[in-house]
Amino acid sequence: VSPAIAPDGPLAPGATIGILGGGQLGRMLALAAAKLGFRVHIYCDDAHAPAFHVAAAQTCAPYDDQEALARFAESVDVVTFEFENVPEATALSIADHAPVAPSPRALAIAQDRLAEKRFVSGLGIATAPFRAVDDEQTARAAFQELGGPAILKTRRLGYDGKGQKRVESADEAVRAHAAMGGVPAILERHVAFAFEASVVAARNRDGHFAAYDLPRNEHENHILKRSIVPAPLGFGHITEAMGIAQRIADALDYVGVLAVELFVGSDGALLVNEIAPRVHNSGHWTMEACLVSQFEQHIRAVAGWPLGDTARHCDAVMENIIGAEAHDWLARAGEPAGLHLYGKTEARPGRKMGHITRISPLGTLKVADH
Amino acid sequence: VSPAIAPDGPLAPGATIGILGGGQLGRMLALAAAKLGFRVHIYCDDAHAPAFHVAAAQTCAPYDDQEALARFAESVDVVTFEFENVPEATALSIADHAPVAPSPRALAIAQDRLAEKRFVSGLGIATAPFRAVDDEQTARAAFQELGGPAILKTRRLGYDGKGQKRVESADEAVRAHAAMGGVPAILERHVAFAFEASVVAARNRDGHFAAYDLPRNEHENHILKRSIVPAPLGFGHITEAMGIAQRIADALDYVGVLAVELFVGSDGALLVNEIAPRVHNSGHWTMEACLVSQFEQHIRAVAGWPLGDTARHCDAVMENIIGAEAHDWLARAGEPAGLHLYGKTEARPGRKMGHITRISPLGTLKVADH
Repeated sequence: VSPAIAPDGPLAPGATIGILGGGQLGRMLALAAAKLGFRVHIYCDDAHAPAFHVAAAQTCAPYDDQEALARFAESVDVVTFEFENVPEATALSIADHAPVAPSPRALAIAQDRLAEKRFVSGLGIATAPFRAVDDEQTARAAFQELGGPAILKTRRLGYDGKGQKRVESADEAVRAHAAMGGVPAILERHVAFAFEASVVAARNRDGHFAAYDLPRNEHENHILKRSIVPAPLGFGHITEAMGIAQRIADALDYVGVLAVELFVGSDGALLVNEIAPRVHNSGHWTMEACLVSQFEQHIRAVAGWPLGDTARHCDAVMENIIGAEAHDWLARAGEPAGLHLYGKTEARPGRKMGHITRISPLGTLKVADH
Repeated sequence: VSPAIAPDGPLAPGATIGILGGGQLGRMLALAAAKLGFRVHIYCDDAHAPAFHVAAAQTCAPYDDQEALARFAESVDVVTFEFENVPEATALSIADHAPVAPSPRALAIAQDRLAEKRFVSGLGIATAPFRAVDDEQTARAAFQELGGPAILKTRRLGYDGKGQKRVESADEAVRAHAAMGGVPAILERHVAFAFEASVVAARNRDGHFAAYDLPRNEHENHILKRSIVPAPLGFGHITEAMGIAQRIADALDYVGVLAVELFVGSDGALLVNEIAPRVHNSGHWTMEACLVSQFEQHIRAVAGWPLGDTARHCDAVMENIIGAEAHDWLARAGEPAGLHLYGKTEARPGRKMGHITRISPLGTLKVADH
C-alpha cells in the first residue's frame, strides 16, 4: 500500500508545499502554488536550481541525504516531485515524515520502462510490443521474437532520447546492449505512427479526474520541440485517449498531474509510449489557453483541493526554446505570444531554457478526424 | 530632470529587479518577473510581507533606513515600486544607487492629490473642480467657490476612501478639515457620474505606449469590489480615455504601468479622478484575459523590454476577495474561474486577501455605446 496523503481535508492557503527537484517544472509549480496562497519549499541537489529563486524556503542537499530529507519533509505539509527519477529510497524516506503525492509506487513504476510497459499492458492498454533485455541471450531472443526495426532502451534514467538506440538486427541489439554497459534494458518493436499526442490529466485525492485537450507533439533531435493543440483527433479518439489516462491514474491511485504519451497509428490505433508521473512539457500551453494551468492543477491535486477547470479557451502552439535559441530572447519578447524563460544561466546545447506559446481563437487550427 | 533608468539596453534575463513594497502587488510583480527569467529582490518594512515568499532576495527594513536602501539598490539592476506612497527621500536616495522606474517625480505627483489634479488639469484634461485647503479660511472659501456637495480629501496617504469626507456646507468643510487635524487637503466638487472606469496602460523606455481595454469598476465601502471588462463605452470614449492616459504618461516621461481612474458622466464626459503610478487592482483581470498581464507589462517596461500584447481574448469579471470572504477559499476553489490568493495570514476587515476572475467569450458581456 502506498503512503497516502494526509486524510484530514484540503490544505488551507498558507500551508507549505515541498517540491523535490528545482528545475523549470519545479519553478513553474512554485509559481502556481504562490498564486493559490501557498508557500513552497524546494529541495534540490543543484545550488543553481532555478526554482530556488521563487520559493519561500530552500534545501540544497543530495537526494540521498537522509537527515536533510527528513528535515525537509517535516517542514512542509505535503511533498511532491518535479521529476520521476527520484530514487525510491528517497521517496519512501520522505513518506515516513510527510504525506507525498504522487505515491512512491507511481514513481517506481514510471521510472522503470519495463515495469511501466508491463503495468500498462496489464491494464489491457495497447503499447508497442516489448521484451526485457538483461544480457546477450535475452537481447538476441528479444529481437528475434519482436522483429525489427526495434528500439533498445535502458530501463532507467533515459530522457530526451538518451539511453536509446535503434537496432535492425539481433546482432545489432546485442552490440547496442553491450555499448550501454549491459544495464537492464527493454527492447520495443518500432511502430509506425502518424504522430505523437499526449494526455495531460489530473486525479485528485477524492478520485476525481480531469484531462486537458490533447496536443500533437513534434520532436527534434529526440527533444520535444512543439505541442499544437488541438491534435488532429476526432471525438472518439479523444475520448479513448482520456479513458486510457483515467484507467492508468485510477490503477495507480494517482494523485497529481500525469502525462500519457501516445502514438497515433496511421490506422488510427492508440499505443501508450510512456507515462510521466508529473507535469509535462506537452502541457505548458495550458498556462495561456486554460484558466487553470497544469501546474496549478497539480498543486490543487496534491493539496487535496477540487480540480480546476480544464476547458481550453483558444487554440495554442507551444514551442520550446532550447540551448542557444535562448540568446534570441529579445526577438521573442517582441512577439505577440506568451513567453516563459526559466532563469537558467547556462544555455547548454539541448537544454530547455524557456518556451513560447502562441494562441489563436478556438477552431483556428485545423482539426481533422483520423 | 528625473533620474533616468539605465540607458544601456534592455535587461537580460537573469538580471535582478528590485521592488519596493511587499504586498500583493509586489508579489504578483515578482511572479511575473520570474516568468521572464528575472530574479527579484523585495524591500519591505513588514516581516510578514507576502511578496517575500516568492523572491530570490529579501530586505526587511524601514523605508527611511538609508543604509539598507543603498545596499538594496546596489544589489539590483533596476528598482521599481508597488505603491505610490514611497517617501520622496526614499525614492531619491535609491536613485543615487540604481536606475528607478517610474521616476521619483511621477511618484511625487501621484502621492499628492493637489499636485496630481494641478498636473492633470495643466495638461488640459478635465477633472472635478478642486481647490487647495490649508486652513479654516481656505476651507470656507473653497466650498463657497466650488459649491456643494463636495469631498474633502487629505492631500497625502489616503486610499480606499480613507482620509475623505463628503461635506454639504462651508461650515462642514471647515469642521471636516479640523477633524483631519488641519493637514494639507484638497476640496473637490462632487460630480455626478454614471460609472467609474479605468485605463491601465504602460509606457516603456522607448516611449512606446500600450493600453488595455477599459473595465467598469464597482466599489463597495469605498473599496474596489469588481472590475468588468469591457466597460460599456463606445469606440470614441475608449480612444479618448486611452489618449488621456497617454498624454499623462508622456508628460511624466513615465516608465512602467500606470492606471488612470476616470469618472464617466451621464452626459458622456470623462473626468480624471486619480492616477496610480503602478499596477492597479482594476487591471488584475489581464492575468486571465490577455497574453501579457499588467504585472508582466510593468516588468517589461522597467526592464527596458518591448511592451507585450495588450489584446484581450475574452470578457472578464474580476472580483476582490476582501477580509473574512477569504475564509470561503474552498468554495471559490471549486468555481470555474481564475483564483488568486495573496498568502496573507490575517483576514482583517477591508483587507484585500485575493481575487477571482471569471471569463467568458469575447462579446458575451453586453457593450452599450454611451
